[in-house]
Amino acid sequence: MRQVEIRLAGEGGQGLILAGIILAEAACVHDGKNAVQTQSYGPESRGGASKAEVIISDSEIDYPKVTRPDIMLVMSQMAYDKYIKDLKQGGVLIYDSSIVKVQPSPDHRTYAVPITATARERVGREIVANIVALGALVKVCGVVSEGAIREAVANRVPRGTEGLNLRALDAGMEVVGELLDAPR
Amino acid sequence: MRQVEIRLAGEGGQGLILAGIILAEAACVHDGKNAVQTQSYGPESRGGASKAEVIISDSEIDYPKVTRPDIMLVMSQMAYDKYIKDLKQGGVLIYDSSIVKVQPSPDHRTYAVPITATARERVGREIVANIVALGALVKVCGVVSEGAIREAVANRVPRGTEGLNLRALDAGMEVVGELLDAPR
Repeated sequence: MRQVEIRLAGEGGQGLILAGIILAEAACVHDGKNAVQTQSYGPESRGGASKAEVIISDSEIDYPKVTRPDIMLVMSQMAYDKYIKDLKQGGVLIYDSSIVKVQPSPDHRTYAVPITATARERVGREIVANIVALGALVKVCGVVSEGAIREAVANRVPRGTEGLNLRALDAGMEVVGELLDAPR
Repeated sequence: MRQVEIRLAGEGGQGLILAGIILAEAACVHDGKNAVQTQSYGPESRGGASKAEVIISDSEIDYPKVTRPDIMLVMSQMAYDKYIKDLKQGGVLIYDSSIVKVQPSPDHRTYAVPITATARERVGREIVANIVALGALVKVCGVVSEGAIREAVANRVPRGTEGLNLRALDAGMEVVGELLDAPR
């Protein structure tokens, strides 16, 4: 890996900024890479779409703006409709199939993951869907190590919720593992 | 104001990322400006220095990296020693005089604010020093409106801590008000 650009897109209140901070911290503090984490606030964020972006690199990161992400996680229909055009040819799309409908495209490697349903049914709390999503993303893409993401989750979530959030991370990894193993 | 670049510098665990997110959200959601909020993680962050950066603009922000900030808030000695050279000529330095010693410089407008002591003595909790610092910064620089920063603080801090954090914000504004009013 030289440099990977990741966009986490959804709506306000889904915890995607925290997910981005955790991912960047995992890459840097625990995996020894460089990372930049960015949120842009503009007219679009007043309209409801929200995105957090993370660049992970083996070397210094000169230009921290993501224009053509390699990996996109999509957690709302509005975010999909708005941002899918930006995803790089051959890029990875992971979307929450509990709530988003997508147009199949041969240009992307697409993973339909029932993120919100997994949070609700396997962890018991929809509010941890952001951490389920992180688990799914790390399992699909391997952008950071599993040890690093566990430590960063435990370090960044509110005190007292570490166990809940680590279960959410595991659930996201497991559900992707089952999808990848399933006959297609 | 066309564009203002702000760096919040200290060490991990001081809550400066959250402070940056709150400032960016105040500018965008409540004051109708554009904002970008960035954290860079690299070798320096493994060594203990931490920075969060916010750019606030009336128009679209093309290049989200802060190289020569207009305003710098400094919450640790290591961060001061490392970053002071980056502050723009004529820029504003606000530093926590409870814990940082600075070299007086005619190049900057410097405000010594006892941020941590104010959190401890006026609010009763050192952990809200980040929000005291936000209050001080907004009072000195007026980069966002007081109404906007109040709403963004209430919206972003953990549920149940809104009152504590709003008291911290007020304390930061008050202590700066007293410093500005004092005979010099």
